[in-house]
Amino acid sequence: MSITVVGSVAYDTVTTSFGRSERQLGGSAIYFSLAASKFTKTFPVGVYGNDFKQSDLELLERNSIDISNLRKEDGLTFFWEGLYDNDDINNRQTLATDLNVFENFVPTLNKPAQNSEVIFLANINPELQFDVLGIAKNTNRHSFVGLDTMDLWINSAEKSLKKVITKSDVIMIDQSEARLLSGENNLKNAGRKIMNLGAKCVVIKKGEHGVLIFINDHEYALPGYLTNDVKDPTGAGDSFAGSFFGFLDKCASYESKDIFHASIFGTIIASYTVENFGVKSLLLIDGEMIYKRYLDYMNLIGYKYIYSENKFKDYLNL
Amino acid sequence: MSITVVGSVAYDTVTTSFGRSERQLGGSAIYFSLAASKFTKTFPVGVYGNDFKQSDLELLERNSIDISNLRKEDGLTFFWEGLYDNDDINNRQTLATDLNVFENFVPTLNKPAQNSEVIFLANINPELQFDVLGIAKNTNRHSFVGLDTMDLWINSAEKSLKKVITKSDVIMIDQSEARLLSGENNLKNAGRKIMNLGAKCVVIKKGEHGVLIFINDHEYALPGYLTNDVKDPTGAGDSFAGSFFGFLDKCASYESKDIFHASIFGTIIASYTVENFGVKSLLLIDGEMIYKRYLDYMNLIGYKYIYSENKFKDYLNL
Repeated sequence: MSITVVGSVAYDTVTTSFGRSERQLGGSAIYFSLAASKFTKTFPVGVYGNDFKQSDLELLERNSIDISNLRKEDGLTFFWEGLYDNDDINNRQTLATDLNVFENFVPTLNKPAQNSEVIFLANINPELQFDVLGIAKNTNRHSFVGLDTMDLWINSAEKSLKKVITKSDVIMIDQSEARLLSGENNLKNAGRKIMNLGAKCVVIKKGEHGVLIFINDHEYALPGYLTNDVKDPTGAGDSFAGSFFGFLDKCASYESKDIFHASIFGTIIASYTVENFGVKSLLLIDGEMIYKRYLDYMNLIGYKYIYSENKFKDYLNL
Repeated sequence: MSITVVGSVAYDTVTTSFGRSERQLGGSAIYFSLAASKFTKTFPVGVYGNDFKQSDLELLERNSIDISNLRKEDGLTFFWEGLYDNDDINNRQTLATDLNVFENFVPTLNKPAQNSEVIFLANINPELQFDVLGIAKNTNRHSFVGLDTMDLWINSAEKSLKKVITKSDVIMIDQSEARLLSGENNLKNAGRKIMNLGAKCVVIKKGEHGVLIFINDHEYALPGYLTNDVKDPTGAGDSFAGSFFGFLDKCASYESKDIFHASIFGTIIASYTVENFGVKSLLLIDGEMIYKRYLDYMNLIGYKYIYSENKFKDYLNL
């Protein structure tokens, strides 16, 4: 069992009210892989430049990530700089986006990466996402495909994006993008409309407010984990996706109940990610810590009360 | 068992993308009482004017609401007019607030209302809220006190408000007001800080994103019910509060598990309220409908999956 993820490899400079972290390891493929590696083998597909540190490659390998599909190109690694609002960490400003070697990125997958049971197309040009599905030989037949996107592609490449959605099993999208893509403000309607584009499952990410999951004719809602130290929200969405698909690959089943539980793991691991700058938390957490927070999360959503009480009818004189 | 609620009696003119409803019955004491009346006897305490319709008084009585503490004053009933944004129903503009007879409202409670086990102080001047607690003879000894407030009082009467909070068991507050009152943007920190003001329980209302509940050393989070027809959000918060305290009064117990379940009923009944203009839904729903939506809500939060699966440790190699 393994996952192939196609996305960015980056250095990020991030400033929040908790401080400033310069040129920290980042990018969607990196956050995704480190989160997924808690559950399964991961093949990130991406490109980095001459400035990419050997120690960062080693760090990935130490976390059981197969780096054979990360290609070095002449130039600099993708660089992003962001400033999160002091008063509202949900607001951020992009100060720099230097695509560098990522600008002409053409994904290539070696044999093992082509054969992964799960393919995740992180937020890149939908045309490239479509090409990757053509390369991965299991696609459309045996593999399970996840998709992320952003407002840029919804606005500039809607047709290509819709083509990729028809080939996808799960689309992960944040609430404002779901509204933009569907033209619906109400999130239930938005989720249903995106389902109608051809995805089998839609996960709408609402940041601190959790996620909505649409699958078949059902919806599920999970609140976010309550943490008091949000130091750096960068990579939360990719950590969510990495744990989500990592869990699905590990349990080798994609039914509603699996997707529901995958969302719980996504929520838990993303909550760890934001408690530290960059990938720091992802490197620290182990199975024990994930399980501990899983129990905390179960308490947060009141599972023990739901279990023990089943006498609602009495209260309604039914 | 009974509840006394002190708040407004109003006529509201509301415009949303679903239409316009003129001079519909409204006000916090009305929404609260109609919701609470699904569970228990309710004494609204308030004032109305010469224009208040006899048929509206009869409507309340038909719903087992005791109207003996609603006083008629010479003048017009409190009138509010609001316009909800076409694109985002969570945004609203107040077009008119005519306090009328509500301007000099001095709550008076008859004996039965003074003896209620539950007292809810809807969103009025904190000084009046404090006076009501002085009148209700069980207060501080035997009764259970709930409190609502708004940004106006946080900004203009913070000291009085904090005095009332120390006398309250539950404070219900929306997320932006919780941030304002606590000076904390992070809602976990905000909830904890408000607990430190002396309330035994804090419920932070997040509209479509559900609620956070702080009680003792624990937090609980419940997502909102997913509805696709939000026709008129007016009264959602007061319906939530009415069902919440109605349920608590009915089960005559105020432990964490009761407050958790009260929040589920609050969520369910508020979700019905917003599906129609004004109090229309509150008049229509019965125990069967509440129970049906309770089951839907349980499915939404995935209780059957949480019940049936307890093998998370396997996935983490623990």
